[in-house]
Amino acid sequence: MAADAQPLSVAVVGAGAVGGYYGGRLAEAGHDVRFLLRRDYEAVRAHGLHVASPDGDFVLERPKIARTPEELGQVDWVLCALKATAMPEMSALVTPCLGPQTRILALMNGLGLEEQFAEHFGAARVFGGLAFTCINRGAPGYIHHLDFGPIVVGHLLNDPAELEIARALWLGSHVKVSVTLSLLHTRWEKLGWNIPFNGLTVAVGGAPTDRIVGDPALRAAVHAIMVEVLTTGDADLQAHGETVHLDHAAIIERYFIQTDAMGAYRPSTMIDFVEGRSMEVEAIFAEPLRRARVLGVEVPRLELLTAVLRALNHGRVDGE
Amino acid sequence: MAADAQPLSVAVVGAGAVGGYYGGRLAEAGHDVRFLLRRDYEAVRAHGLHVASPDGDFVLERPKIARTPEELGQVDWVLCALKATAMPEMSALVTPCLGPQTRILALMNGLGLEEQFAEHFGAARVFGGLAFTCINRGAPGYIHHLDFGPIVVGHLLNDPAELEIARALWLGSHVKVSVTLSLLHTRWEKLGWNIPFNGLTVAVGGAPTDRIVGDPALRAAVHAIMVEVLTTGDADLQAHGETVHLDHAAIIERYFIQTDAMGAYRPSTMIDFVEGRSMEVEAIFAEPLRRARVLGVEVPRLELLTAVLRALNHGRVDGE
Repeated sequence: MAADAQPLSVAVVGAGAVGGYYGGRLAEAGHDVRFLLRRDYEAVRAHGLHVASPDGDFVLERPKIARTPEELGQVDWVLCALKATAMPEMSALVTPCLGPQTRILALMNGLGLEEQFAEHFGAARVFGGLAFTCINRGAPGYIHHLDFGPIVVGHLLNDPAELEIARALWLGSHVKVSVTLSLLHTRWEKLGWNIPFNGLTVAVGGAPTDRIVGDPALRAAVHAIMVEVLTTGDADLQAHGETVHLDHAAIIERYFIQTDAMGAYRPSTMIDFVEGRSMEVEAIFAEPLRRARVLGVEVPRLELLTAVLRALNHGRVDGE
Repeated sequence: MAADAQPLSVAVVGAGAVGGYYGGRLAEAGHDVRFLLRRDYEAVRAHGLHVASPDGDFVLERPKIARTPEELGQVDWVLCALKATAMPEMSALVTPCLGPQTRILALMNGLGLEEQFAEHFGAARVFGGLAFTCINRGAPGYIHHLDFGPIVVGHLLNDPAELEIARALWLGSHVKVSVTLSLLHTRWEKLGWNIPFNGLTVAVGGAPTDRIVGDPALRAAVHAIMVEVLTTGDADLQAHGETVHLDHAAIIERYFIQTDAMGAYRPSTMIDFVEGRSMEVEAIFAEPLRRARVLGVEVPRLELLTAVLRALNHGRVDGE
């Protein structure tokens, strides 16, 4: 928290690894952060919340925790880090935390999630956050953060004044935050990485990204899928009246350089796959595919990948 | 064997389920059939070769068996039912059985195999056979045949006189045989089924065909892949100077009707996949893909499927 700022109240809903980490950083910075916990409730109550991070380890000895959203109370910000597969529960979990001025930051993967928040709560208070990082749960109460980059925050209506308010939340924290003037642009740009890599690492039976970029045919498939996704993204941006477009060549080149440097990185969908959990297929794959169809963009690879991932997801449920 | 016919000598190379079944039928009909065996050698020597089949069960009490191709000796016909992944061994296994007049029937899955035989032994003696059936190995010495249809035999040079000679081999046996005047046409037509179904049943983690046709998105993927394959087939037929073409609509309609009726059928590639064996990716997928690229046909789904299957095949080896 910046020296001249007031502490804000923050409810962390979906306090898995991502919510626990970023909520923990806000608490560390002095904000009044309240975590909605299930699996880790008893462990955190007994021993606190422990975070290992290249940006500095920290422990919250006695964080405010609750088992129900009603106990969290009304707050300035809801930090929603639910898995996208839990969106059917979202309204029930978020509504009890909302007052008239409460803002919501959806720190989640996939497309169309902010729109679902907006349907319930109005667009003006909805923000989306994209974490370019890898954060894993350890034992209950323990979180491991691997640094890859800042989080990017956008506003659903792309209001610059609102973006400054969102940025201010993170001032004084150890989280690097940048803002985007087009949330939709940033979502599509990130999908340009997530769709090929989250998808192919699953399709090949659960392998890290180095197996994909190190295989010439899969590398070519990544490139072709990126083109499908970014082409759809451009059409979607245009359909939304946005004037920005995606620089395909630059994005693709950068993603290959970054991914080549990542080593054996395990995307979240691939971790869910190998651990037998439900994968975020609808938000990361099916919603982009749906938009491609509406927009008349040919996406044969995305189509095939989505059908295969949905079939692989069949019968899987989320544990805690 | 027809009443007026002479018994012919037949070497069965690759005497797994397919070779054992069809070779067994020729022996049952009175031909001098010699089986090259590995895994099943001791069991067949001790107890004979047992076949369960809707076309009639039979037992060969004391079939001629050998452990090396040299012991088989020169024959009239080599029935080669190797798995396509064993093609590097093919020449060493077949050459000892060849005299000047020996003909070779490759009863195998995939594209370009007959051409590999022709490179070694000349095209005039090379035939291809396609089995529209399911034959599984049971315990050593036991084979289970599920009837689905006749085998179709073609000649690499499409010589009608040679086709009659091939047909004559099976006269008097319990095997229904039909001949094709275009081996290439028949190979492509069969690939129109094998590529989508062998591929997708693996891609979804190892599921039978009813899971594919029962899922609207996968069913649509099957259709789109069939179009890619048949379009490539037409271009390949034209490039080979053949005047026949593939009737896409009729083939696709028939395949869906047949597959809907098959129930929980397990394609050979899917069985290999779930049992941890090497899959016939090169012959069934990669060679058709290679031809599509040479011919300039867009096959994004075949390309993606092939890349994924090759990756899934990585490190697998064939057992016995």
